[in-house]
Amino acid sequence: MERVYNFSPGPSMLAMPVLERAQKELLCFGGTGASVMEMSHRSKMYLEIFEEANALLRKLMSIPDDYALLFPQGGATQQFSAAPLNLMTGSGAADYVDSGNFAHLAAAEAKRYGTVNVVGSSREDTYTYVPALDRAAFDPKADYFHITTNNTIYGTRYTALPETGDVPLVADMSSNILSEPYDVRAFGVIYAGAQKNIGPAGLCVLIVRRDLLGKANALCPKLLDWKVLADNDSMYNTPNTFAIYMAKLGFEWLLNLGGVAAMEKINIEKADILYNFLDQSKLFKGTAQKAFRSRMNVTFVTGDEAKDDAFVKQAAKAGLINLKGHRSVGGMRASIYNAMPAEGVTALVNVMKKFELENA
Amino acid sequence: MERVYNFSPGPSMLAMPVLERAQKELLCFGGTGASVMEMSHRSKMYLEIFEEANALLRKLMSIPDDYALLFPQGGATQQFSAAPLNLMTGSGAADYVDSGNFAHLAAAEAKRYGTVNVVGSSREDTYTYVPALDRAAFDPKADYFHITTNNTIYGTRYTALPETGDVPLVADMSSNILSEPYDVRAFGVIYAGAQKNIGPAGLCVLIVRRDLLGKANALCPKLLDWKVLADNDSMYNTPNTFAIYMAKLGFEWLLNLGGVAAMEKINIEKADILYNFLDQSKLFKGTAQKAFRSRMNVTFVTGDEAKDDAFVKQAAKAGLINLKGHRSVGGMRASIYNAMPAEGVTALVNVMKKFELENA
Repeated sequence: MERVYNFSPGPSMLAMPVLERAQKELLCFGGTGASVMEMSHRSKMYLEIFEEANALLRKLMSIPDDYALLFPQGGATQQFSAAPLNLMTGSGAADYVDSGNFAHLAAAEAKRYGTVNVVGSSREDTYTYVPALDRAAFDPKADYFHITTNNTIYGTRYTALPETGDVPLVADMSSNILSEPYDVRAFGVIYAGAQKNIGPAGLCVLIVRRDLLGKANALCPKLLDWKVLADNDSMYNTPNTFAIYMAKLGFEWLLNLGGVAAMEKINIEKADILYNFLDQSKLFKGTAQKAFRSRMNVTFVTGDEAKDDAFVKQAAKAGLINLKGHRSVGGMRASIYNAMPAEGVTALVNVMKKFELENA
Repeated sequence: MERVYNFSPGPSMLAMPVLERAQKELLCFGGTGASVMEMSHRSKMYLEIFEEANALLRKLMSIPDDYALLFPQGGATQQFSAAPLNLMTGSGAADYVDSGNFAHLAAAEAKRYGTVNVVGSSREDTYTYVPALDRAAFDPKADYFHITTNNTIYGTRYTALPETGDVPLVADMSSNILSEPYDVRAFGVIYAGAQKNIGPAGLCVLIVRRDLLGKANALCPKLLDWKVLADNDSMYNTPNTFAIYMAKLGFEWLLNLGGVAAMEKINIEKADILYNFLDQSKLFKGTAQKAFRSRMNVTFVTGDEAKDDAFVKQAAKAGLINLKGHRSVGGMRASIYNAMPAEGVTALVNVMKKFELENA
């Protein structure tokens, strides 16, 4: 069976060398005689993998020592609860930007624990852009300020970070972490579900500036308490050991490729192939405002639902799968994360060209 | 590299046919052209796997329709918080039996949310038995009654369930689920971390009688709220898709073997090989009281720490790994979950015999 180009928004494609290595080692890792899945998380053999994953990600993102790097379970959604439970304990208020579906869900969850000040929203415009922000609307006493750096469903991204002064910036970076360089020092907290640019689902990468640890709500469940996770080096309980191993293989792959800056160049090239075609197409058009176009999720429509459906089916027949847009917006979405090769994007544009000729 | 016999308490051995199948399908599952790890959790191809995992476990455990079967992340430890957050909202009190380390941790976490009535404890006796219970000590108004059916660290198990009347019995079954038949109807809630008898770490199996849904504390994080999980069929967010697939392969393997009753027979035979040797050994002796001996975790000592260490090393050289007892008790522990073949237990006894001859 030939491999397909998988444009799924997450879980999504993994790099072939990563999958091949995992396959090779699945029954016996190195000289251990056991699968990584069978290793005690406290065994020497596993701790070597774990510490390497840690070191590689610190290197890739230049994470300073005064930031804890944690690998909790529960994906980004668990951090929607953990952020207010850990931080909304000073003034009890936080600023949120409502730039997409997950940003909206994060704010809704935070409202259960305190006061949420929505400082900007593009919800009324189907989130086709990242809202402009007025610093005067920011709460200088907010416990934190929350953003979602890339909006998976609507295909938009922040082009500049809000300036929040002393208020810690907390970012859900699920759908564009490791796709472009970020200065970790600009953030108090970064979290990201693994299933887009890191590895398989069931894992979250969580980066917390250490001075923000130890402020949790008294009712915060142990596994959501960042200080408990940090004090136990992510092993208060058994972590998702296999996903961390897969993430490690992914980090190695990315480092071999030249790291995040090199990856960004490739990602810009990949996105350009698709956006350049969209901008001259007579049939397809992009739905996100140009200034905020995501490099990870490219959303587009024909303007005719029947044609959208026909295109998704035709692409699938050509081995390009999961191009259907999110049920809340329809149309098409091509998620082209780090592991999607440029060849996959070119193949997509070729199928789009053919479809356009046949259906214009 | 030859495979070892891995006596790890968890994550632990997986059955060879399960690992081999996973290896074969790692790059391309069936005719899909993608790895299971790359599939959207909402895609048709993945939902087939998910629904099969569900149906197989319902069959293996005869789970009645009025019980929800859920696959949250976070292992059993997350349920230590979820149990009180979901149920301790009536009288605000619950009964707990303190029969081991994890039972103790579960009770400690519950105390943060309400009143915990410890109805029995063997803590003063290093948990070498499951404490006898006096029904008169049970709180008839308790929101639930919590037990741990098998105590991983101390090698004990319940031989009879407490009779709790109308108070729902909540069981952490992490280390003996699927190893012997249980009548699900005897429980209000069953939960189990996957990494012993189910599959890789990062997954929990959670079975909840439906009338117990919808009682959660107002501050319960979304992903810990059993009703949210049930209403969304475990897909409120992306679940640990690959671990669920591995669990499905394990369920198939177990069903092919004859199901849980057949597995129990094998497990009794395996445990007998080891306990029969221990009971006549001049060097090794079991640490758990005979009446409460676990069939999953067999704890033993020589009575001499230096000999214990020497034995663990000698066994490792013979390809029998992870026999060191938990740091809190020392000595040895052989975890012989479902996937440990009888040959592994026999190999262990042979190494013990040899060591005894050399060191008696």
